[in-house]
Amino acid sequence: LKIFALNSNRPLAEKIAETVGVPLGKTSVDRFSDGEIRINIEESIRGDNIFIIQSTSAPVNDNLMELLIMVDALRRASAGTINVVIPYYGYARQDRKARSREPITAKLVANMLQVDGVDRVVSLDLHAAQIQGFFDIPVDHLMGAPLLADYFIKEGFGSNDVVVSPDHGGVSRARALAEFLKAPIAIIDKRRPEANVAEIMNIIGDVEGKRCLMIDDMIDTAGTITLGAQALVDAGASEVYACCTHPVLSGPAIERIQKSPIKQLVVTDTIQLPKEKQLDKIKQVSVGPLIGDAI
Amino acid sequence: LKIFALNSNRPLAEKIAETVGVPLGKTSVDRFSDGEIRINIEESIRGDNIFIIQSTSAPVNDNLMELLIMVDALRRASAGTINVVIPYYGYARQDRKARSREPITAKLVANMLQVDGVDRVVSLDLHAAQIQGFFDIPVDHLMGAPLLADYFIKEGFGSNDVVVSPDHGGVSRARALAEFLKAPIAIIDKRRPEANVAEIMNIIGDVEGKRCLMIDDMIDTAGTITLGAQALVDAGASEVYACCTHPVLSGPAIERIQKSPIKQLVVTDTIQLPKEKQLDKIKQVSVGPLIGDAI
Ligand SMILES: Nc1ncnc2c1ncn2[C@@H]1O[C@H](COP(=O)(O)O)[C@@H](O)[C@H]1O
Ligand SMILES: Nc1ncnc2c1ncn2[C@@H]1O[C@H](COP(=O)(O)O)[C@@H](O)[C@H]1O
Repeated sequence: LKIFALNSNRPLAEKIAETVGVPLGKTSVDRFSDGEIRINIEESIRGDNIFIIQSTSAPVNDNLMELLIMVDALRRASAGTINVVIPYYGYARQDRKARSREPITAKLVANMLQVDGVDRVVSLDLHAAQIQGFFDIPVDHLMGAPLLADYFIKEGFGSNDVVVSPDHGGVSRARALAEFLKAPIAIIDKRRPEANVAEIMNIIGDVEGKRCLMIDDMIDTAGTITLGAQALVDAGASEVYACCTHPVLSGPAIERIQKSPIKQLVVTDTIQLPKEKQLDKIKQVSVGPLIGDAI
Repeated sequence: LKIFALNSNRPLAEKIAETVGVPLGKTSVDRFSDGEIRINIEESIRGDNIFIIQSTSAPVNDNLMELLIMVDALRRASAGTINVVIPYYGYARQDRKARSREPITAKLVANMLQVDGVDRVVSLDLHAAQIQGFFDIPVDHLMGAPLLADYFIKEGFGSNDVVVSPDHGGVSRARALAEFLKAPIAIIDKRRPEANVAEIMNIIGDVEGKRCLMIDDMIDTAGTITLGAQALVDAGASEVYACCTHPVLSGPAIERIQKSPIKQLVVTDTIQLPKEKQLDKIKQVSVGPLIGDAI
């Protein structure tokens, strides 16, 4: 068993390798002068079972191509099995035709991985669990919720608090977290009565005087979660916490979170956070042991 | 027949559309907040024969993914046939395992295009003609040499001049250009007598007092072509011109060309040149009519 890290998230790869108890494989992945990816695998891998750790987070196209080229090189070097660990699976939101003539990029990515010769995929909290069905190879689909629950239980969260889904698409996820905490749930039900009119944030469930914990699979521009937090405060919540598996945090996200009434945001390390995104109120818990145990 | 341009080279796409006599299809290709590619095809294409124009020049991974996602969207929208025009085919130099455990990225790209549902590929001066065999679909392989020959014939080049291959890999290309000009050829034969010793540039053929025209398929960092130009001057060439199909021009290329004894470098527009690469000594001729006639 050999574990190789590409460039998207080396710190996580190191934690996974530590859990498994092997050193990271020797490889260099850099660029030619014109920007094309150059890969150099610096040890023999013939017949070995290989795990590659790579999130397809931003820059998504570069990270995806690194992964595909690495798999190509390993296959041509007679690797035994090629297992790819994609802690954050990019393009997952483009998983269906919501309008005419849209691509289904999440399926395109699955096809490319398969034609490339991947034997097995390990991922966490796919935006839609259906993406498993885009593959004809085994997909291990891990969940961040137990890890996030552990964290909040240690912080004293429990049956007196309320787990909140920031939209009606995330209710099952909120339900799962609430099981662990033995807490009730609430749902923020957004609705736009007419086009060009501001959305109405209606809260289904009782949050008055309660500590609320919002959960989502990913936080991207942080519009949903910060508006939701404000709506909870307006409805009388005593404190608002938030958590998610994938901290995409693009565009205005950091500023919005900083300014929001969210007291603490707990995320995992499926996506590496650059310095400028490491706010005091953002706490990262590692999925390294979880993934390490799964491989 | 509909022609769509993606983002790598819209000016060339417009010239192709002009030659064919149809307007460019309506589409927008931009980015979501997190950098993922968003494609919007703004007209019906059901049953149509589609041509997509996209060079996989830098940023190569972004340009390649734009192409793949566009093809996915067109196929799902029931396009009749999907023809991709890749004037410059990126990753073409990674076309074989030169060392152990190298990828063959040029084949990976071919596989991805095929699994994506492409019906036919049109490209120009593939770095190795063998890349045609990486595909099981028709590949039209066009040549820039006749176009470059036309240019130099109009400038008065002919049998008194010498066509020079900058290395022994490019002799056939030099031979082809020399046919058009009815000129003799010469070859720059680089050789490194020992490791860590400077290369010796030996010129095979007669260049003394002659006007020399070097030809290559692409110029990337411009090391080969500018060292070659100096070797020709040292060997008594009266003037040195150069030409290539693909102006990759990365890293130190522009500075090297500027400082070199090359009087004029003629390139095609398979790769769009940003302002800072448009030197006075670089002249661009368009492959638009050539491609337009081929499709
Ligand atoms: N990277 C992205 N950023 C924002 N929206 C996206 C992205 N990729 C896809 N989408 C859109 O998000 C919607 C799907 O999100 P959801 O409803 O949460 O599953 C679709 O309308 C997609 O077009
Ligand atoms: N983008 C690139 N820039 C520079 N060299 C490359 C690039 N891609 C591949 N190569 C290397 O170039 C060599 C092949 O070039 P050639 O001998 O001209 O066919 C191989 O050793 C490749 O590893």
